[in-house]
Amino acid sequence: MDLPQLLLSLIVIYGSARLLGELAVRLGQSAVLGELLAGVLVGGSVLGWAEPTETLKLMGEIGVMLLLFEVGLESDLQAFLKVGWSAAAVALIGVIAPFALGYGVAAALSMTPLQAVFVGATLTATSIAVSARTLNDLGRLKSSEGSIILGAAVLDDILGLVILSVVVGLARTGSVSWLDAGQTAGTAVLFLVGAIVLGGRYAHWFGSLVGWMQHRGSLIVSAVTFALALGYAGTLVHLTPLIGAFAAGLILARVEHQIHPGKHIKPVADLFVPIFFVLTGAAVDLGSLNPFLEQNWPVLLLAGGLTVAAILGKLLAGLGAREARVNRWVIGAGMLPRGEVGLIFAGVGLTSAIISTAEYGAILVVVAVTTLLSPLLLKWFVKAA
Amino acid sequence: MDLPQLLLSLIVIYGSARLLGELAVRLGQSAVLGELLAGVLVGGSVLGWAEPTETLKLMGEIGVMLLLFEVGLESDLQAFLKVGWSAAAVALIGVIAPFALGYGVAAALSMTPLQAVFVGATLTATSIAVSARTLNDLGRLKSSEGSIILGAAVLDDILGLVILSVVVGLARTGSVSWLDAGQTAGTAVLFLVGAIVLGGRYAHWFGSLVGWMQHRGSLIVSAVTFALALGYAGTLVHLTPLIGAFAAGLILARVEHQIHPGKHIKPVADLFVPIFFVLTGAAVDLGSLNPFLEQNWPVLLLAGGLTVAAILGKLLAGLGAREARVNRWVIGAGMLPRGEVGLIFAGVGLTSAIISTAEYGAILVVVAVTTLLSPLLLKWFVKAA
Repeated sequence: MDLPQLLLSLIVIYGSARLLGELAVRLGQSAVLGELLAGVLVGGSVLGWAEPTETLKLMGEIGVMLLLFEVGLESDLQAFLKVGWSAAAVALIGVIAPFALGYGVAAALSMTPLQAVFVGATLTATSIAVSARTLNDLGRLKSSEGSIILGAAVLDDILGLVILSVVVGLARTGSVSWLDAGQTAGTAVLFLVGAIVLGGRYAHWFGSLVGWMQHRGSLIVSAVTFALALGYAGTLVHLTPLIGAFAAGLILARVEHQIHPGKHIKPVADLFVPIFFVLTGAAVDLGSLNPFLEQNWPVLLLAGGLTVAAILGKLLAGLGAREARVNRWVIGAGMLPRGEVGLIFAGVGLTSAIISTAEYGAILVVVAVTTLLSPLLLKWFVKAA
Repeated sequence: MDLPQLLLSLIVIYGSARLLGELAVRLGQSAVLGELLAGVLVGGSVLGWAEPTETLKLMGEIGVMLLLFEVGLESDLQAFLKVGWSAAAVALIGVIAPFALGYGVAAALSMTPLQAVFVGATLTATSIAVSARTLNDLGRLKSSEGSIILGAAVLDDILGLVILSVVVGLARTGSVSWLDAGQTAGTAVLFLVGAIVLGGRYAHWFGSLVGWMQHRGSLIVSAVTFALALGYAGTLVHLTPLIGAFAAGLILARVEHQIHPGKHIKPVADLFVPIFFVLTGAAVDLGSLNPFLEQNWPVLLLAGGLTVAAILGKLLAGLGAREARVNRWVIGAGMLPRGEVGLIFAGVGLTSAIISTAEYGAILVVVAVTTLLSPLLLKWFVKAA
């Protein structure tokens, strides 16, 4: 890819994201819905204008890290600790219910037990990216519901690590190493707790360092470098880099009053984030959804069943919230999107030869539908409340 | 390149750029000098920590476009028109003098006439990126000297188009198509004038459109998209995308009072720009500069002669300024850096088999020395004035 090609892709991505994002806002919807639909429109299955090259994908991934960093900056660790038990319950039900329902659907459609386990596992994923962005769009980040959704999504990523290592181990060796799975989860928890405790204690050093620097741009570059570094460290313990970036935001939130990183990060996030969501939308393959093609019927049947399981399972998760006055529907809707995490799960299943390309296609449908439905439902439940 | 690799590269680039940039500022130098030296340090010839992958290079190129966009936003078209004749004289002398001197050096070291023409042509380049950044660092963008340097650098890019097409035509066919060269230059001039005249007339539409949009981030995304689009359009008429981005900035400068794009672009530029300068520094091959290796002597002799020609030629260009009270040394120093334009010229020479890899190496030395020397000299002359 050379520079003119990249420029053209960015112009298409930004132009379509702006147009459909603006339209979504005017129709009272979340802007992220518009950006996802913009992706569907310019993606391979309609216009074919936005080829997901390596550079675009990487810029999008940086973008979603910056989004989580910004969300962390605007969050309050205390708010998460206060709803900790609810978040844990939501995460746990949000794993068990979709798994059981997905397993049931897969088994009913005569898949093998291993395949059914894998399909069920895939439905347990939660895309922290889409949830965080929608909450941000709706101005609901700081509500109790927002804290529960984000907290549960973080815990879900750790649970996802366990599930993935169990399922892949099962596929490879036929047995489960609970020790390995436990170690993986333990390291991830240790990393998160360690980063937040130590980071919180020494955050003011960061503030002083940035304050001492004279060279223009020291704040934004230092803050972003910190977010990228924690994201990178997260990948070393197998977490998604998003969790590390989110932790970096939570830590620097303590110096927000001192150096205001949040104000500077906004335009940068605004520029990177749409790339991620447009590419996510562009990955939707409308062709496989065409109900007029008979060859799509088995896939659509599986996809339909799994989609119902996926939606029902996560809406049930909302019931895990213990607080009297929270809207459990909002929480369930916020946990819906499988997004990039679902894609990673499905990709592992395909490369491990657990599932066929047809079953992979069905999971992609579940990912697409839940990801597009979540902003719609979330907006609807918030309005209805 | 996967995400963890990119994160690691960015951490190294930002960390080193921040450290050496800050050091440069503390030593009274321009920050860009520190970033270039940071690149030399982390680049292949010393630490080897920053591999210039496609994605990093593209992000750097976007960065330098955003830099020129920002410079354009902070510039005043009137200021350029006022010093237009001086800029033209500086650009013209800055082409003729280095060409003649370079030709002389090359001929004296018994290169063929075609090679001598090419080497001379390479010395005529001016890197608008390094000059603009240094002027920005020194707060001299809006001085008469700054306007003359930037104006001359833009004109030099158009002259460079002519020179390159003449030299390459000469190498391929043995004859010069002045018609082609004239057409190329004509289209480029037409594009620039057209963009600025039409853009200036309709800039307030852009302001109104952005003001009408409700979706967060509409200003930064629209402004950057405009810059990328004009940069892309520029490449269609063979200009560097930097010139298009600069023109976009000049155009939107007219709505700066209305929507303040400049304020929002700063953190974004701060984040992208260091990637470009660190990678530029990383391209310097210190190994070929080692005077203790006898095999380097012929290259070093050629490099030394050409470097003197390159510096002398551009310092002479400063004399082209007609204004009574401008500092001609500052202008000459600002025209010094060959930067990325010199690299493009040298690369064409190598792929057209006009010059050997040894001669290519010598030109790289000229590019490196002039690029690193310019911020130093510029600072020195500004201080002395």
